[in-house]
Amino acid sequence: MSEVFELHRGGKLAVVPTVPLSTREDLALAYTPGVATVCEAIAADPALVHEYTWVSHTVAVVTDGSAVLGLGNIGAAASLPVMEGKAALFKAFANVDAIPVCLNTQDVDEIVSVVTALAPSVGGINLEDISAPRCFEIERRLDEALPIPVFHDDQHGTAIVVLAALRNAAALLGRKLPDLRLVVSGAGAAGVAVTKMLIAGGVTAGEIVMCDSRGALHSGRSDLNEAKAALAASTNARRITGSIVDALAGADVLIGVSGGTIPEEAVAAMAPGGMVFAMANPTPEVHPSVAARYAAVVATGRSDYPNQINNVLAFPGVFRGALDAGATRITENMKVAAADAIAGVLAGDLSPDAFVPSALDPRVAPAVAAAVAEAARRDGVCRPTTAR
Amino acid sequence: MSEVFELHRGGKLAVVPTVPLSTREDLALAYTPGVATVCEAIAADPALVHEYTWVSHTVAVVTDGSAVLGLGNIGAAASLPVMEGKAALFKAFANVDAIPVCLNTQDVDEIVSVVTALAPSVGGINLEDISAPRCFEIERRLDEALPIPVFHDDQHGTAIVVLAALRNAAALLGRKLPDLRLVVSGAGAAGVAVTKMLIAGGVTAGEIVMCDSRGALHSGRSDLNEAKAALAASTNARRITGSIVDALAGADVLIGVSGGTIPEEAVAAMAPGGMVFAMANPTPEVHPSVAARYAAVVATGRSDYPNQINNVLAFPGVFRGALDAGATRITENMKVAAADAIAGVLAGDLSPDAFVPSALDPRVAPAVAAAVAEAARRDGVCRPTTAR
Repeated sequence: MSEVFELHRGGKLAVVPTVPLSTREDLALAYTPGVATVCEAIAADPALVHEYTWVSHTVAVVTDGSAVLGLGNIGAAASLPVMEGKAALFKAFANVDAIPVCLNTQDVDEIVSVVTALAPSVGGINLEDISAPRCFEIERRLDEALPIPVFHDDQHGTAIVVLAALRNAAALLGRKLPDLRLVVSGAGAAGVAVTKMLIAGGVTAGEIVMCDSRGALHSGRSDLNEAKAALAASTNARRITGSIVDALAGADVLIGVSGGTIPEEAVAAMAPGGMVFAMANPTPEVHPSVAARYAAVVATGRSDYPNQINNVLAFPGVFRGALDAGATRITENMKVAAADAIAGVLAGDLSPDAFVPSALDPRVAPAVAAAVAEAARRDGVCRPTTAR
Repeated sequence: MSEVFELHRGGKLAVVPTVPLSTREDLALAYTPGVATVCEAIAADPALVHEYTWVSHTVAVVTDGSAVLGLGNIGAAASLPVMEGKAALFKAFANVDAIPVCLNTQDVDEIVSVVTALAPSVGGINLEDISAPRCFEIERRLDEALPIPVFHDDQHGTAIVVLAALRNAAALLGRKLPDLRLVVSGAGAAGVAVTKMLIAGGVTAGEIVMCDSRGALHSGRSDLNEAKAALAASTNARRITGSIVDALAGADVLIGVSGGTIPEEAVAAMAPGGMVFAMANPTPEVHPSVAARYAAVVATGRSDYPNQINNVLAFPGVFRGALDAGATRITENMKVAAADAIAGVLAGDLSPDAFVPSALDPRVAPAVAAAVAEAARRDGVCRPTTAR
């Protein structure tokens, strides 16, 4: 324990100059009077901010501290160690310079105003650990308001890696995504995004059953927030009602993003040769050794079991690619491209113990970045520029 | 010119991890699951944020782009090269990690809200290049609202270095501060702060005449904003009216922070053996070679003449000292201590060509930091802590 605290003492980041500042001449170039000509050039042509400032490689990691890891609503200050860690990973994996921004407000309107106000300082916004359903509105409004990529990692980072894992698991087992029956346990930020991503990636919407703490989502339920209600309408074509135990009977895939516990009998009732991705951390919804009794492939959110579903496979490369391409937003196609790139790193080399790349695999972030940038260009969401 | 643009390409800063992130074990300590214990500790005892995050050495450099260098209101994006440069200087001179924050709003209420909301992310707020009189209200409200130091550098950085320069110039010439007659040309952010600082440092308030574009400030003028009116009431005991030419007749010290031009005849009419600090940049209010015909000592804002009044002598050490001491605000005494420390670096080694330390003098920032930290402790404005 004290090893952890010693490591975190004084934080985990530094901001360093990348230009010389030793001589009078250095200062005159990097600061006054030289800097004035750069400012004037940007004032005359605002697009030059992407050439002559660090926004071209900089992201704000923004949280309100309302849903931090599995710790819940611990507030701005207590969330800073996580945001620093996230920023450190951005740099280590994709050379993206990331700034932790922990906001002392949990009011949706105020968060949107604050992030909109500070947006000229950065090239992208990574939203982090903001509770559902607030996170949906915050992301949607910022995406509409800002000319830079906005990405809520708890939703889309997880969703991208789940789709990548499902692609490889299906390939390994000789299954086709459209034929699979899936259960998504958890209908918060991650569950909603995972479900949308799976549909965008080729899973049959009607064959997905989402479950929240009250059981299966279906269009007959009147207790659903907007995001859940929208998905209840397009998923669960079999109109399954009841608990997750009912939903899992005969299902091929269990995707757990709930934090809850799923009884062994329910897993046992799945179709044989299936897939279990139990991502709750630190305690998976079903223990991987139990899941392995019934499922052909198992993944978790933990680094000490095979096939870790870890967001770090996605977010560094997603932003690197979006920034490299000058993307003004992150589209569904860009996310699907990221998933395909993550899956593709292991192409032709899949096994039940290794169908998800290691979080430390150095091939992942560059592959994701290239795929995301290409998808951004294909989707026509890049700023016009002569220099790129 | 292209040398400047090449230097600024891609900006001037990077955010780098200060902890290892190469192995699975590294990730488990720096990020999940290890980081959760640190978050929980801070949630239980918020003061620990100063121990286990980077706020202990981090400052936001905040601007709204309304008064950037001498370029005026060029907006958020165009101001970013200056803020990056400032952040680079913070690191180079005092190992303070600074984040440029360029706000896309110039509404006073909104700026206060935004900075208040993001304040948990940093250990101090350096306001920069915000136009007067808005800067006074923004600083005052943030200083009242936030438990961390707030410092508008264009005001206080300049003021601190002017006081340091005046101390050494007076020592060199065998003059006492309370006996001097002074004219401050310019009554914007810097002029107001310089005047207050001089008074706090021992200059006789009534012997200062401030001048704005309409001439001398006196209590009979009805066209003054709140900040000017307050100073008009306490300065100019001789009730001098008219232009700066009238004010300078017989004065010992001219302090120019206006950007305007002062005619040679006016300087010629000053008392003999005086001091001229003409800090407009790039064109001093009176050319130093002209000033030298009449004044015993001359300082400017330019690096290519002797005695440069450069804020970099003040702000890095001021924040380093405030952060080191756990100061919750920056008091008048802390600013006077900073000025005395800057002046003291050259103690016993003064000459007309070198009574202000060089901007690159490595003794300055540590001396300022130590003096500011000591003054903070003396003023009782430090957070209680056992660890410091």
